[in-house]
Amino acid sequence: MKRYEKFAEDIAELIRSGVLAAGQRVPSVRYASQTHGISPSTVFQAYYLLERRGLIRARPRSGYFVNDNFVGPSLSAPELEAVPAAEQVRETTEVDVSELVFSVLDSIKDPHTVPFGSAFPSPALFPLQRLARSLSSATRDMDPRVTVTDLSPGNPVLRRQIALRYMVGGLMLPMEELLITNGALEALNLCLQAVTQPADLVAIESPAFYACLQVLERLKLKAVEIPVHPQNGIDLDVLELALERHPIKACWSMTSFQNPTGAQVPEERKRALVELLRTHQVPLIEDDVYGELYYGQHAPKPAKAFDTEGLVMHCGSFAKSLAPGYRIGWVAAGRFAQKVERLKLMTSLCASMPAQAAIADYLQHGGYDRHLRKLRNTLEDQLRAMLGAVTRYFPAQTRVSPPSGGYFLWLELPEQVDALKVFHAALAQGISIAPGPIFSPTRRFRNCIRLNYGTPWTDTSETAMQTLGKIIRSLMGH
Amino acid sequence: MKRYEKFAEDIAELIRSGVLAAGQRVPSVRYASQTHGISPSTVFQAYYLLERRGLIRARPRSGYFVNDNFVGPSLSAPELEAVPAAEQVRETTEVDVSELVFSVLDSIKDPHTVPFGSAFPSPALFPLQRLARSLSSATRDMDPRVTVTDLSPGNPVLRRQIALRYMVGGLMLPMEELLITNGALEALNLCLQAVTQPADLVAIESPAFYACLQVLERLKLKAVEIPVHPQNGIDLDVLELALERHPIKACWSMTSFQNPTGAQVPEERKRALVELLRTHQVPLIEDDVYGELYYGQHAPKPAKAFDTEGLVMHCGSFAKSLAPGYRIGWVAAGRFAQKVERLKLMTSLCASMPAQAAIADYLQHGGYDRHLRKLRNTLEDQLRAMLGAVTRYFPAQTRVSPPSGGYFLWLELPEQVDALKVFHAALAQGISIAPGPIFSPTRRFRNCIRLNYGTPWTDTSETAMQTLGKIIRSLMGH
Repeated sequence: MKRYEKFAEDIAELIRSGVLAAGQRVPSVRYASQTHGISPSTVFQAYYLLERRGLIRARPRSGYFVNDNFVGPSLSAPELEAVPAAEQVRETTEVDVSELVFSVLDSIKDPHTVPFGSAFPSPALFPLQRLARSLSSATRDMDPRVTVTDLSPGNPVLRRQIALRYMVGGLMLPMEELLITNGALEALNLCLQAVTQPADLVAIESPAFYACLQVLERLKLKAVEIPVHPQNGIDLDVLELALERHPIKACWSMTSFQNPTGAQVPEERKRALVELLRTHQVPLIEDDVYGELYYGQHAPKPAKAFDTEGLVMHCGSFAKSLAPGYRIGWVAAGRFAQKVERLKLMTSLCASMPAQAAIADYLQHGGYDRHLRKLRNTLEDQLRAMLGAVTRYFPAQTRVSPPSGGYFLWLELPEQVDALKVFHAALAQGISIAPGPIFSPTRRFRNCIRLNYGTPWTDTSETAMQTLGKIIRSLMGH
Repeated sequence: MKRYEKFAEDIAELIRSGVLAAGQRVPSVRYASQTHGISPSTVFQAYYLLERRGLIRARPRSGYFVNDNFVGPSLSAPELEAVPAAEQVRETTEVDVSELVFSVLDSIKDPHTVPFGSAFPSPALFPLQRLARSLSSATRDMDPRVTVTDLSPGNPVLRRQIALRYMVGGLMLPMEELLITNGALEALNLCLQAVTQPADLVAIESPAFYACLQVLERLKLKAVEIPVHPQNGIDLDVLELALERHPIKACWSMTSFQNPTGAQVPEERKRALVELLRTHQVPLIEDDVYGELYYGQHAPKPAKAFDTEGLVMHCGSFAKSLAPGYRIGWVAAGRFAQKVERLKLMTSLCASMPAQAAIADYLQHGGYDRHLRKLRNTLEDQLRAMLGAVTRYFPAQTRVSPPSGGYFLWLELPEQVDALKVFHAALAQGISIAPGPIFSPTRRFRNCIRLNYGTPWTDTSETAMQTLGKIIRSLMGH
């Protein structure tokens, strides 16, 4: 172990043990250099490493501080470290990632494949029988005239229920602003289209959910990649720089339990994100489909909660928390609400009415919060199981940043391991994974993979992790 | 009445009474000139008039023939004549019609308004209760895993049922080509996007369904308007000219019971349309959402039936024939099938699964053909009722071309009547209509209106027609 690595490990230990608390300043370079008898450049190297691991973060002209949502030692095995994120504003990029994504998606259609590469949690986790009852009773009583009168913005009972849930969480969302869509994916498409023209620049996360890249590709938009820190989410300093340098027309961010990293933007940083974009008058498209899947005591507030000027277009969905396959999402598009609603009318008129009515009925009578509590506990248990397996079977150099919600684990494998090779070798053994390059228009993250732990843990999962570990090790030597 | 008008009326009478049957050749210009003692140019003028009325049609180097889908005298009042359609290739046009369309659409949301302006048939005409039963049983038995495995192209049972229906009608459509969409509107959007880039030219009908104009606007495409003959549909000669003059990237046509004219392209002309586009290697986007609503003995064959090279992208829907509000449509996109499926995955992932499963169940067990027979009879009865009211209450100069399917009546009012004024005056009296200019990017058809007869005829309908007649007369004098 080199000197700077040793010093970094010491500081990391101080953070893990709580001696250095979240938000606290770490020793200045000069102080550390003097007290530890090492050169300032060694301290810098160590801090740089810790920053890449997501443990600390630089504030311009103030020094380094402990990241405020670091997940403690209970979930983080010593050899598992945070994934680094790049520091520079990337060049803008034409997006063309679809072929690769589709080959990955095709691979996970086989029901016998271990679905670590899937984008969905197991359907077994959802109250589909109870929803079917809601579907029956809601459509039995449905007034036929609504099929003509209740086009977009959508079922008023459903929209009221959604607004109520936000209200309980402290976000006042006028029902008039809410539009029901065919899942969040359509909402995101409509939002982007409402505020961009082909060839415009959009600030996106890096890594980003591949569907985001596909939407950009479809709409012929260009991406400016902003690094995501595994713990804190989108890098505000880099974003600020990008906003100053480029004529960015929108910013797309997954503010809670980001796909693929699981990163959660802390509340204060959400506020800062909204404020930064407000200064530049750039709309934020907030993709919040995992917001209900938090493991803590309280739901994370969305960035929309800090929106004072209607610049945040907040997108949600029931697909990941309640009703996969129903394809019911929504958007509260602020000052763009009417424009988005009209685009929706031109694109697909309205969302399927039986599905809307069923979910409206379920939200009123089905016990959604009870279901969610159970779902969150299950997902957190499955996270622990998968983290355990990573510790047991993966090489020690593997870095991971345990999320505090959602169902994705983002792993940085040893540098010499090619994630696409892992993908192919694993698939040959009946295991799917999501390789890093599908999450970047510039094919970065070539040694990263995303694993889905949204499926109940079984012996098959354990064996599959063991097999994956072997595959990764076998790719390290060559 | 001028001499050529008198002679045209004589020939029209021969056609109406069945002396000249569909497909039969009308007297040659020379023969008619000699036997009737009129100049050849008078005969030409008369035949030209008859052609404009949709009664006959020229075949190059063969003379004039009686159109084979002329609707006989039982439906056509003597003073009601076919609507003329322009002859020239129009200039290409940026499409910007949405504001006008949305103001019309907003107007028909009030359930107390007489819905002559609506785009939908009355929901009372559909077996929504029976569908709700299908919904219950289909979702009760639904394997949760399909919510992950059965994304686009969609529910295999539903796709098989749709393919079977086409097979019975003589069209072999491989199930693999079929993609389920959120209604035909999404299918049309995806098709256009698959074969165009922003600023490309698309040949569309004139008048065209306003949603088509909105889709062009949304995708930033330019329109080349091709006239629609009220009986024969899209003008092939003009289309040919347009294809030679302009780099047209796609042709969008509603081949059966066109919205708004009700025009039905005869089978042979569908074949010719496909052949013409094949020669130019231009894809046909066939919007066939009214195909099941024919009044004759046999379903009209879609243009897709004549497609030999996979250039026809055929779009259908259950929204107008079975399940309004379910938002289930489909597309068989020929050689573009994979591209369209991928666009669908990027746009909205898949259609709502309960709705797909319900319709699949209904098609197997619900008695769809029985429902359709009843629906067709009802619509034809309602057409007769509305035509009668037009004859009773509207000015004699009103021209109408009774359709042989669907539920729209396209009327050309006396020239001095402004359809937008009719729209506003009627709305003030609680009656909606669809004014001509919303069906054209160049705001043509200013004295035309579209009336929807898809609602069971009542005293209210009768009174509303009387009121409309008064409004129109009142606008004639000034």
